[in-house]
Amino acid sequence: MSTFGSLYKVTTYGESHCKSVGCIIDGIPPGLPLEDVDIQAQLSRRRPGQSNLTTPRNEADAVQLQSGIEHGVTLGTPIGLLVQNKDQRPHDYTETDLYPRPSHADWTYLGKYGIKASSGGGRSSARETIGRVAAGAVAEKYLKLAHNVEIVAFVSSVGKEHIPFIPTDSDEPISKEFRHILENTTREDVDKDTTRCPHPETAKRMTERIIKAKEANDSIGGTVTCVIRNCPVGLGEPVFDKLEAKLGHAMLSIPATKSFEIGSGFRGTEVPGSAHNDPFVKSNKGLNGLGTATNWSGGVQGGISNGEDIYFKMGFKSPATISQAQQTAKYNGEAGVLEARGRHDPCVVPRAVPIVEAMASIVIMDQLLIQNSRKATASLLPPISTLPPTMVLTQDAMNTIKKEADNNAKEAGM
Amino acid sequence: MSTFGSLYKVTTYGESHCKSVGCIIDGIPPGLPLEDVDIQAQLSRRRPGQSNLTTPRNEADAVQLQSGIEHGVTLGTPIGLLVQNKDQRPHDYTETDLYPRPSHADWTYLGKYGIKASSGGGRSSARETIGRVAAGAVAEKYLKLAHNVEIVAFVSSVGKEHIPFIPTDSDEPISKEFRHILENTTREDVDKDTTRCPHPETAKRMTERIIKAKEANDSIGGTVTCVIRNCPVGLGEPVFDKLEAKLGHAMLSIPATKSFEIGSGFRGTEVPGSAHNDPFVKSNKGLNGLGTATNWSGGVQGGISNGEDIYFKMGFKSPATISQAQQTAKYNGEAGVLEARGRHDPCVVPRAVPIVEAMASIVIMDQLLIQNSRKATASLLPPISTLPPTMVLTQDAMNTIKKEADNNAKEAGM
Amino acid sequence: MSTFGSLYKVTTYGESHCKSVGCIIDGIPPGLPLEDVDIQAQLSRRRPGQSNLTTPRNEADAVQLQSGIEHGVTLGTPIGLLVQNKDQRPHDYTETDLYPRPSHADWTYLGKYGIKASSGGGRSSARETIGRVAAGAVAEKYLKLAHNVEIVAFVSSVGKEHIPFIPTDSDEPISKEFRHILENTTREDVDKDTTRCPHPETAKRMTERIIKAKEANDSIGGTVTCVIRNCPVGLGEPVFDKLEAKLGHAMLSIPATKSFEIGSGFRGTEVPGSAHNDPFVKSNKGLNGLGTATNWSGGVQGGISNGEDIYFKMGFKSPATISQAQQTAKYNGEAGVLEARGRHDPCVVPRAVPIVEAMASIVIMDQLLIQNSRKATASLLPPISTLPPTMVLTQDAMNTIKKEADNNAKEAGM
Amino acid sequence: MSTFGSLYKVTTYGESHCKSVGCIIDGIPPGLPLEDVDIQAQLSRRRPGQSNLTTPRNEADAVQLQSGIEHGVTLGTPIGLLVQNKDQRPHDYTETDLYPRPSHADWTYLGKYGIKASSGGGRSSARETIGRVAAGAVAEKYLKLAHNVEIVAFVSSVGKEHIPFIPTDSDEPISKEFRHILENTTREDVDKDTTRCPHPETAKRMTERIIKAKEANDSIGGTVTCVIRNCPVGLGEPVFDKLEAKLGHAMLSIPATKSFEIGSGFRGTEVPGSAHNDPFVKSNKGLNGLGTATNWSGGVQGGISNGEDIYFKMGFKSPATISQAQQTAKYNGEAGVLEARGRHDPCVVPRAVPIVEAMASIVIMDQLLIQNSRKATASLLPPISTLPPTMVLTQDAMNTIKKEADNNAKEAGM
Repeated sequence: MSTFGSLYKVTTYGESHCKSVGCIIDGIPPGLPLEDVDIQAQLSRRRPGQSNLTTPRNEADAVQLQSGIEHGVTLGTPIGLLVQNKDQRPHDYTETDLYPRPSHADWTYLGKYGIKASSGGGRSSARETIGRVAAGAVAEKYLKLAHNVEIVAFVSSVGKEHIPFIPTDSDEPISKEFRHILENTTREDVDKDTTRCPHPETAKRMTERIIKAKEANDSIGGTVTCVIRNCPVGLGEPVFDKLEAKLGHAMLSIPATKSFEIGSGFRGTEVPGSAHNDPFVKSNKGLNGLGTATNWSGGVQGGISNGEDIYFKMGFKSPATISQAQQTAKYNGEAGVLEARGRHDPCVVPRAVPIVEAMASIVIMDQLLIQNSRKATASLLPPISTLPPTMVLTQDAMNTIKKEADNNAKEAGM
Repeated sequence: MSTFGSLYKVTTYGESHCKSVGCIIDGIPPGLPLEDVDIQAQLSRRRPGQSNLTTPRNEADAVQLQSGIEHGVTLGTPIGLLVQNKDQRPHDYTETDLYPRPSHADWTYLGKYGIKASSGGGRSSARETIGRVAAGAVAEKYLKLAHNVEIVAFVSSVGKEHIPFIPTDSDEPISKEFRHILENTTREDVDKDTTRCPHPETAKRMTERIIKAKEANDSIGGTVTCVIRNCPVGLGEPVFDKLEAKLGHAMLSIPATKSFEIGSGFRGTEVPGSAHNDPFVKSNKGLNGLGTATNWSGGVQGGISNGEDIYFKMGFKSPATISQAQQTAKYNGEAGVLEARGRHDPCVVPRAVPIVEAMASIVIMDQLLIQNSRKATASLLPPISTLPPTMVLTQDAMNTIKKEADNNAKEAGM
Repeated sequence: MSTFGSLYKVTTYGESHCKSVGCIIDGIPPGLPLEDVDIQAQLSRRRPGQSNLTTPRNEADAVQLQSGIEHGVTLGTPIGLLVQNKDQRPHDYTETDLYPRPSHADWTYLGKYGIKASSGGGRSSARETIGRVAAGAVAEKYLKLAHNVEIVAFVSSVGKEHIPFIPTDSDEPISKEFRHILENTTREDVDKDTTRCPHPETAKRMTERIIKAKEANDSIGGTVTCVIRNCPVGLGEPVFDKLEAKLGHAMLSIPATKSFEIGSGFRGTEVPGSAHNDPFVKSNKGLNGLGTATNWSGGVQGGISNGEDIYFKMGFKSPATISQAQQTAKYNGEAGVLEARGRHDPCVVPRAVPIVEAMASIVIMDQLLIQNSRKATASLLPPISTLPPTMVLTQDAMNTIKKEADNNAKEAGM
Repeated sequence: MSTFGSLYKVTTYGESHCKSVGCIIDGIPPGLPLEDVDIQAQLSRRRPGQSNLTTPRNEADAVQLQSGIEHGVTLGTPIGLLVQNKDQRPHDYTETDLYPRPSHADWTYLGKYGIKASSGGGRSSARETIGRVAAGAVAEKYLKLAHNVEIVAFVSSVGKEHIPFIPTDSDEPISKEFRHILENTTREDVDKDTTRCPHPETAKRMTERIIKAKEANDSIGGTVTCVIRNCPVGLGEPVFDKLEAKLGHAMLSIPATKSFEIGSGFRGTEVPGSAHNDPFVKSNKGLNGLGTATNWSGGVQGGISNGEDIYFKMGFKSPATISQAQQTAKYNGEAGVLEARGRHDPCVVPRAVPIVEAMASIVIMDQLLIQNSRKATASLLPPISTLPPTMVLTQDAMNTIKKEADNNAKEAGM
C-alpha cells in the first residue's frame, strides 16, 4: 500500500491536484540534527523546470515540517511533513478526456478502484515521490553522520547512448571506465551537466538524443545507476528480504521503472563463474580486514552487504506522455485519435536521480535498524566456548581446523 | 526476514544440513481441493539430478503435509509442511574450511551473525527454496481453478546463447519469435528439453555451452523468463507495492538472481515513447472490453495489472561453486589457493524454473487477496450519482464529456 | 510504532506543541461519500472545554483534509489530514521542570529516547488521539452505510460510582439494567448528560464525585463501556488476532487505559460454565438463522464475531496531572515537592468516549477488510461435494450425520 | 493471522487432530545456547494430566527441533519445531455432531470459513498453544541470560476464591499480601500446589471449588496473574504499541481469556490521582538511579517500561465444555438437548500458567529487539550540545533550569 519499510517506515499521501502531498516518517533515531534545508536540497533537485531539457513547470515545492523535531534535533517520534500543491485548478473537459492515455495509469486505476481522480492516474503522479525524497534525505543525513555513507546516482544512458558498460578490450564483466565512475563520482560531478551524466562525451550525445526527441514531439527513456559507498557490513535479511530484493522492490516502485540489476547484473549471466567470482584479499574496507579483489557482486553476497561498494542500475521506459497525436481507443472501445495536449518532458531520467538516491537511503536505513537490533541484542550474550571452529572462525579456530585437516589428509593417505 | 506476503503469507525454515526444511502457509482460501501430488509435481521439477546437465545428487524430496487440510480440502487454516533432509552427516575438516568460498555467503553470514552454520552459508542454501515451491504450488492450484491463470517459466538464455529477444528486422521492442513463445508455450513444451528452453535451436546451443562449462570445470549463468496468462485485472498496490515491485522483490530473493526486467525492460529505455506506448483497442481479454494492441508494458501499467499477459525475465549469475582451484584468501586474510571439492552443477538455471513459477504464484495470490478485499468491500456501497463524468466513465459519462468538450472548443473559437 | 491496522492502516504524527497533529488513513474503500463534517462531529465530541466538568481550554480542532477525496467521494487512495496546534508558545522554565511528573511519561520518554520534547511526554499527549478519532469516523461512515453498524460508547463508572453491572437479584453474569443500556442506548442518549453516562441516577452521583475531586484539587478515573451492534459475522482472525485481542490492543493503546474486558469479562470467571454458556436458538440476527439466547460472550466466540452485540469495558486510571503539590524526586534523584501548575481536568473519561468509538471502528473495519478478502476469494471456488458432513453442515449433511449416528448408537447397543 | 511479533516473529500451525502442531520462530539472536530441554520444561508444565484436578489425557508432547541450532547454539536463523499429535483417530458420528457446542468456536469457524475441521473448532484448540509455549521458552532463555529477567505467572483466583487483592485495612490500590507475592514468588513456589496458586489458604479453597465443579459435572474459571521482574527500561512503542497494549493483545489471544488489567487495573479507576500516582525516589532498580516509591502503574508509564516490576492479571472464563446435558439448538435451528461426551477438565487455569509466561516472554523479547535497534542506532550519533536543558536533563541541564527558573520567578515578583 502506501507504507514502505519495517523499522524506518515511510507512509505517503497525495495526488497531483489535491491540497498537498506529504508523508509521515516513523522510526527516525532520536538526537539527529535536522533542518528544512537538509530535505529541501534534494526536493529541489527533484522538481521540474531545472533546465531546458525538462518540462517548464517550475514549482517551488517548499517543505513544511510538522512534528518530530525540536530545536533542530529529532525526538525519535514521527515526522509529518507536506508540500502544498499549487495546481488545484478546476477542470475543463476536452475530447481528450474520452481517452485513457496509452501506457498511462488512467485505465488501470479505473479498473482497480472503479473510480479515478478526475485528472487522471491519481497516485501514479510523479508528485507522489516528494514524500519519498524527503524521507530519503532524513535517512541519508543519519547514514552520513554515523557511517559516512555516500549515495550517488547518475544517468548512465539515454536511449541508445550509454556510458560504456561492457568492456571492448577484456573479458571482465564491466568496463574500467564505468568502474572508475562508480568509485569516484560525487553528487557535484553529477550535477555539472543537465543530463546528470558524469561522463562528458556520453552526456553530449545524450543531450542531442533528448533534443531530437523534443523536436520529434516524442520521448525517450534511459537508465540511472546508483552507488552506495561505505555501507555497513551485514545488511539484508535472508531469505526473502535479501538486500538486492529490497533495493529492487524500492527501485521498481518508482514510476516508469521497468528493470533493475545489481552488480554485473544481466551481464553476469554471460561470464563464467571462474571469471565472475570475487576473490578475497586483505583489505581495510571490507569485513574484519577481508575484502574482495573485484566487486562483480555489487557489494552484496548471499543477499547481505559485504562492505564493498553497492551499485545497481535501473531502466526508466520512455515517457508515455508525448506531444503528438496517437491512434488508440476511447474508454468505450471506439477507435480514435488522441490529440496531444501541452508540451511534455521528453526525458525524465535526470530528475529521477534524487528519487533513486532517496529510495536507496530508505532501504539502507531500514536494513541498518534491523541489523543493529540483532547485533546489539546478540552482544549481551556470554561468549560460547564450545562451538566447532568452522562456526566462529577466530584465529584459534583456524589453527584447530588446520590441524584436523592435516590429520584427516594423512589418514586418507594423501 | 523469513516471511513473505501480507494476506498469503509464507514463512520458511531450514538450512542444508539440519533435520528438515519446510514452511507454514497462512491465508489459503478455505474449500480448495489440495493433495500432496499438487505440491510434489513442482518439487520434483525443482530437485537436482534430473539430467546429466545438472548435479547428480538425487534427493527424493517427498513433501509431508502436517495441517490445514482434511479429506483433501483446505480448511482456511495454516498449512505446515516439511521435507526431510537426507544429508545430515558429521563434518570432516579439510583445508577448504579455512577459506570463505568466493562469491558465496559464507563470509557475509559470518559477518551478519557472528556465527555460521558449520557447513557454510546456512539459509542461502538452495534447499530453502523447497518451502517456496510448495507454497507456490498451493497458490497456483487456486489461481488455476478460480481464474484459469497459467504461469509458465522457461530458460531464455545460457551464457551468451539467447532466444532472440531484440528484433533484427524491425524497430519493435521485442522480436516476433520471442512474443510467440510468450503467448503459446506450455509447461509441457518447456520440459521437453533438459535445458527447459522451448526454442529448439537455442536449446541445442545452450546444451553445448553447458557441456563446455562442465568440461572446463567452470560454471555458466543464464536467464529465466516467466509469463502469467489470464491474470485478473487490478492487481498491484500503488505506490510502493506496484505489481512489478512485488514481482521484482520476489524474484530477486531467489538465490543467485542479480537482475529483473518486466515487459520490454531495459530495451524499453531505448525505444521512443511513440513506438513504446501500447494503444488501446477493443478486446475480449482486457478490462471492460478494452485491451491493448501491443503489450510492451508486460501486462502492468501504473503498477497495476491490465489483463494482458504479464511477462518478466531475470538473470542468474554463473554459479559461485566451481570444480577448479581458485586464488583467494583465508578467513584471516592470508592468501592461498582454494582447491575444488567434488563435482558441481555447472548451470542451475533449468532447475530455477519451478522456483520462479512458485514466487510468481505467491505474488499474484497475495495481490489478488488484497484486491478482492477492496472490490468486495466497495461493492456494498450505494452507487454515487453525483460524480463528475471523468471519475467514473460510463457511457453516460462519456456523452457528458463529449458535449462539454464541444462547448469548450466552440467557446475557444476552435 | 505509529501505525495501526493491516488493511485499514492508520498512521499518526504530532506532539502537543508542534505545528500540527494528523494522520494518513490508507485502505479506505473507493466510492465512499465523505465530507469534513463526518469527521468534525466526532472531533468536536473529543475536544476539551465542553462542560464545566472538564478542562476549560477550548480548541477549535478544525480538520483539514488533504487528499484521497474528490467531489465528496473517496478515491480509495490515502487520506492525509491534519489539525493545527494552537499552542506552540515558547517555554519559560520553572522549578517544576526539574521534576519528572509522577505517573506521567516524562521520565520513560527520556529513558526510551535519551531526549524528550521540551514540554514533556511528547506523543503521550492526548492530542495524538485526534488522528485516531478522524480515522475512526471515516471507518464508521463505511460501516454504517454498508452494514448499518452502530457503535456507541458511554461512561459506565466514575470512581466507585458504577452503573449496576453485577445483578443483586440473580446469578446471571450481568444485570438486566446494564444489558438494557447495552441493547438500546444511542449516541444521543449518551450526550444528554455531561458525564456521558446514560443512566441518570448514576450520572448524578458521578457528577458529584467529579466535583468532589475538583474541589480537592485531585482527580478521579472511571470506565467506558462500548457496544457494537450489527457487526458482520466472521470477523477476527485465529489465532493471534482474535477479535477480542485486536480490540484489547486498540483500547489499551489509548492514553491512561489500564484494563479491558469483553462480554462478562472478569465476572465470567466466577460463574460456572453451565450458567455462562450461551445456548443457541433460532434467530434472525446471528449467523444463518442461528443466534444465542444469552450473550455473555460479548458477541465473540473463539475470537470470531457471531453476529450478537459486541460489548466491552475499559478502565481509565485517575489522571496523573493534579492541581496539588506532590512529594516526589527531581530528575537527579533529589527529593522535593512538585508544585501544581494551572488547573486540570479532574476526570477525562467523558472525553474518552469518542476515542473509544474511533478505535472500535478502526478494528472492525480492518477485520472486515480481511474477512471480505477471504469470503470473496473462496466464493470463486467450485463447490466441493465429497466432504464429510460435519465439515459443511448443510441440511443434507445433517441428515447424513443423523443416520450414521443412529447406526453407531445401534451398533453400540445403546 | 497466525503470526505474532515484528522482530521476534512466531508463526504457528496445527489443529487438534492433524499430523502435528508446531511453529517457526524467526528473529532469535545468534549465539544463544539452546537445547530441547529448555523448551520441554515449559511444554510439560502446559500439558494435561498433571493432577487429578485436570483432564486425564496424558500426552507426552515431546518437542522435535528441526533447524536454526547447531551444537546447542542458535544460528540466528529460524527455528522450526513440531510436536506430533497422538490423537488422529477417524471419526464416529454421533447425535452430538448435529449441535454446535455452546460458547465454543464450532459455529463461528463455520461462519468464518464456510467449512470447519471435522472435529470442531480447529485452530481454537488448546493444542495450538504448544508452538507459543516453545517460542516463549526460547525468548525467556535469552531474557534470563542477558538481563536476568524473571517471569512468573500464578493462579490468582478460581471462581470467587481470590488471593486478596483489594486491601481491607487501607485505601491503597492493592493489598500488601498480594504485593508480597508479586515481589517474591518463584516458579517453584507456584508449582508446589496443583492449583498453581502460591497463597496456601486460597489454594485450599480453590481446590475445593474445583472439586465442587467436577462433582457437579460443571466447570469454573479463574484468573492468572503474571509478574515480570528486571525488565529492561524503555520497552513499548508509542503510540499504538504501548507495552500494555501489546501485552493485552498477547494475553487476549490465549483461548478462553476475556479480560486483562495491568498494575492496579480496574481498581485504579476508583482511587484518586493523589493516591494513585507513583512518586519518584532514588533507587538502584529503575532508570538512571530513579525509581518509584510505589508501583501502582505496574511498571509501565506512558506505555513504556520504567524498570519496576511489570504485573498484570487476566481472566479465563469458565470452560465451555461441560460434562452435563445442555438445552440448545442444532446447526439447523431445531431446539434440542446436547448430551455430554466424555469427562472434561473442570478448570483449565492452572495449565494456562506456562502459556501466559510464554506470551509475556514473546512480547518482551519483541519489544526489546525494537528498542535495542533504536538505542544502538542513536548511540552512533555525535552528542548534541545545543539542546534546551529540558530535552536532555543532565545535571548541567538541571543547573541551567534552576537558574532560569529563579530568574523567571524573580521577574514575576514571586
